Amino acid sequence: MPLTHLDESGAARMVDISGKPATKRAAVAGGRVVMSAEARQAIADGTIPKGDVIAAARIAAIQAAKKTADIIPLCHPLPLTGMAVDFRLAETGVEVTAEVSTTFGTGVEMEALTAVTAACLTIYDMAKAIDKAMRIEGIRLLRKTGGKSGDWSADDAPD
Amino acid sequence: MPLTHLDESGAARMVDISGKPATKRAAVAGGRVVMSAEARQAIADGTIPKGDVIAAARIAAIQAAKKTADIIPLCHPLPLTGMAVDFRLAETGVEVTAEVSTTFGTGVEMEALTAVTAACLTIYDMAKAIDKAMRIEGIRLLRKTGGKSGDWSADDAPD
Amino acid sequence: MPLTHLDESGAARMVDISGKPATKRAAVAGGRVVMSAEARQAIADGTIPKGDVIAAARIAAIQAAKKTADIIPLCHPLPLTGMAVDFRLAETGVEVTAEVSTTFGTGVEMEALTAVTAACLTIYDMAKAIDKAMRIEGIRLLRKTGGKSGDWSADDAPD
Amino acid sequence: MPLTHLDESGAARMVDISGKPATKRAAVAGGRVVMSAEARQAIADGTIPKGDVIAAARIAAIQAAKKTADIIPLCHPLPLTGMAVDFRLAETGVEVTAEVSTTFGTGVEMEALTAVTAACLTIYDMAKAIDKAMRIEGIRLLRKTGGKSGDWSADDAPD
Amino acid sequence: MPLTHLDESGAARMVDISGKPATKRAAVAGGRVVMSAEARQAIADGTIPKGDVIAAARIAAIQAAKKTADIIPLCHPLPLTGMAVDFRLAETGVEVTAEVSTTFGTGVEMEALTAVTAACLTIYDMAKAIDKAMRIEGIRLLRKTGGKSGDWSADDAPD
Amino acid sequence: MPLTHLDESGAARMVDISGKPATKRAAVAGGRVVMSAEARQAIADGTIPKGDVIAAARIAAIQAAKKTADIIPLCHPLPLTGMAVDFRLAETGVEVTAEVSTTFGTGVEMEALTAVTAACLTIYDMAKAIDKAMRIEGIRLLRKTGGKSGDWSADDAPD
Repeated sequence: MPLTHLDESGAARMVDISGKPATKRAAVAGGRVVMSAEARQAIADGTIPKGDVIAAARIAAIQAAKKTADIIPLCHPLPLTGMAVDFRLAETGVEVTAEVSTTFGTGVEMEALTAVTAACLTIYDMAKAIDKAMRIEGIRLLRKTGGKSGDWSADDAPD
Repeated sequence: MPLTHLDESGAARMVDISGKPATKRAAVAGGRVVMSAEARQAIADGTIPKGDVIAAARIAAIQAAKKTADIIPLCHPLPLTGMAVDFRLAETGVEVTAEVSTTFGTGVEMEALTAVTAACLTIYDMAKAIDKAMRIEGIRLLRKTGGKSGDWSADDAPD
Repeated sequence: MPLTHLDESGAARMVDISGKPATKRAAVAGGRVVMSAEARQAIADGTIPKGDVIAAARIAAIQAAKKTADIIPLCHPLPLTGMAVDFRLAETGVEVTAEVSTTFGTGVEMEALTAVTAACLTIYDMAKAIDKAMRIEGIRLLRKTGGKSGDWSADDAPD
Repeated sequence: MPLTHLDESGAARMVDISGKPATKRAAVAGGRVVMSAEARQAIADGTIPKGDVIAAARIAAIQAAKKTADIIPLCHPLPLTGMAVDFRLAETGVEVTAEVSTTFGTGVEMEALTAVTAACLTIYDMAKAIDKAMRIEGIRLLRKTGGKSGDWSADDAPD
Repeated sequence: MPLTHLDESGAARMVDISGKPATKRAAVAGGRVVMSAEARQAIADGTIPKGDVIAAARIAAIQAAKKTADIIPLCHPLPLTGMAVDFRLAETGVEVTAEVSTTFGTGVEMEALTAVTAACLTIYDMAKAIDKAMRIEGIRLLRKTGGKSGDWSADDAPD
Repeated sequence: MPLTHLDESGAARMVDISGKPATKRAAVAGGRVVMSAEARQAIADGTIPKGDVIAAARIAAIQAAKKTADIIPLCHPLPLTGMAVDFRLAETGVEVTAEVSTTFGTGVEMEALTAVTAACLTIYDMAKAIDKAMRIEGIRLLRKTGGKSGDWSADDAPD
């Protein structure tokens, strides 16, 4: 009946990166909130009652990136060296892109993805009085640089 | 040159709900991680090196729901009364559903959506060594009950 | 040599409010950042390199109010029902006012004060490249309503 | 191969307490740090280089109680209405007792236990330069009152 | 009446480690939850109503290790490079061991101890419906390596 | 109608410090709580009902310094290497000074300022039953050392 050494059979662990050198790494992630024309227009016009959607979503993204290791159980806590978030009005809603950098032994893909999702959730929150049927779509890694596994880009990543 | 009373012109605020009665409310949100057949198989087989993906994603979802007001700037902090997360293997990856309940003056849509995104991010994190091109898709509200605005379901929400 | 029952002699405790009814309460706090004319102008013009100071300070204030019980050891955690922050350009810098409300057994004075200080710290952070000698002054309670001790206003509180 | 409805077979969930009335509840937990005579003496004399051990441990306990739902995955977040921590010098080290109260639909046993462990960990941290072999022992619930399951005391709980 | 320079007389401080080189360090801590045969059996059988105890306790341990500096006042925040948790069914309950590593100027003893206590608290939380009299016992440091003070093992640490 | 590349026009960002070397840096900030003679006396006498004000404020300051990047949106998270807080009874109330150090690519001015404000807020919280009209005044940077911009002192900083 022993549960002994459950680690051998699929138990969660924070992977040991102590042998990896601290090098410069960056990641870019993207995603979008698909919404009604009315919601999109209200965001563009700045008439959402809860306030300026883009400004709030941007701060939410930056703050969430710093909380990544608190939100995602097996992520290593790491010191971010920079971060920026970009928003674009697309035909079907709002597109979000986040770029994060660090100098550490592991990459910042999860920080960039977490930032984008926090921005999208904030947009949903602020506009949901207008449109409850909004959807968050296409959250994905667009690009990463640095680290042992090298650079990587999504096949169809925008420049 | 005064910025006086910027609140009048689009500034973010936490909406006053002090006049709303504390009533029972619930929300269900869903989403999915679209991935390669290889990644999907490794999750199903429990052979992901970082450990049991579903168990970790489930705890991540529950913990993130409790942090919603910390992640989304204008959300009210509120006491959750219950929460469950469900995972299904779909043809193209893993589907996540989260149900959250409270007895409070505002709803838990954002808590359900935050739970689902945290689960999806955790799945991405644990399987990204196999497939970096995974995408988080279709994060949306499926159903809400309770509150002044009444019940609501997505047009095509599964039962 | 026993330390026995140190509680009797000045030990910190979270005061028991379980006998107090949950009633509607609000508090308004104010404060200001005194700065050089150059820094003040850059904030007014929106030319601070770190970005829009007021938008960031506003979100910082709202988020900090929710973290009050985490920052101030003996504060009770409580569910905020509403919050707004106001910024004004004064002759010597930027003035901040925060209003917070709850329906609970204790007041929200500390939440309002914490919000104002977080806004002031954020202003300092964003403008410090221009003026390191800025000072945060006059953080104080302006008004509180509700609760057993009743309403209270600072002698010279602005309307 | 479906993982469908894993909830049926042992998956973690936050138990639904929405049907339980908010009533007054309290819990008392205890524990102790067993240490060398030298470490015990240094704490009693206030000569630990890191500073006043008891004052730090007390604040740590209060702050940790408020973070219980963040530390223990399936705990409900709840509004504490009061809390006190007591320390006694015992023959073999330091004894800690924590009492927590709430008015909510579930009890505060975990909050009391979390407070005691945080106090014990803080004592260990501050005295470990003197004695690395300290042990935290006997963390347990001493008493609970209120709630549907009624009052409960450990068989040998001190008065 | 001055409190001047209270630091000289026992005030808490975060010890200055800026002169210490960042070197590889690790620590292993252990502890156990002593429980009734019924509770132990339910955990082994996976029939605890709240869900899979070991999976939840493991994630709780990993997440708590990352929060150590937030729980223990004088701990330095530090970047963990790896972490694993092991559970064993013992005759009297469940034994927990946690191993943590970092490359930093101070050790990770507190992170390992915090991880073990969080796991034990989670086990208590999930099984307390069956046995309220469970006790957390024997939380202690088993081994540390690296750092100026060198390696250390508890006299009777298991291999 | 595109919001495209809002970053170009004043959007908040976390400044990229990845090119800056990790060097030793320190900062000292100060501030004070101005209060009635009665409140000041109660703090000096240790007769504040909530407990030992200075001990609680000191821990609050240390804990808040570690949370700086969580409170101030554009601050980089960074590993503190040391911290101390000092309190003095002044004629008009209590003066607080905090010193923080790190070895990192950016300075710790905000950490020192955040520590001082958290200490002041805690003093206010604990003494507000005696004096609601207390004011937090003169929060400012006194000194910084290290980093590319070099050392800096306030014109009238005390030694």
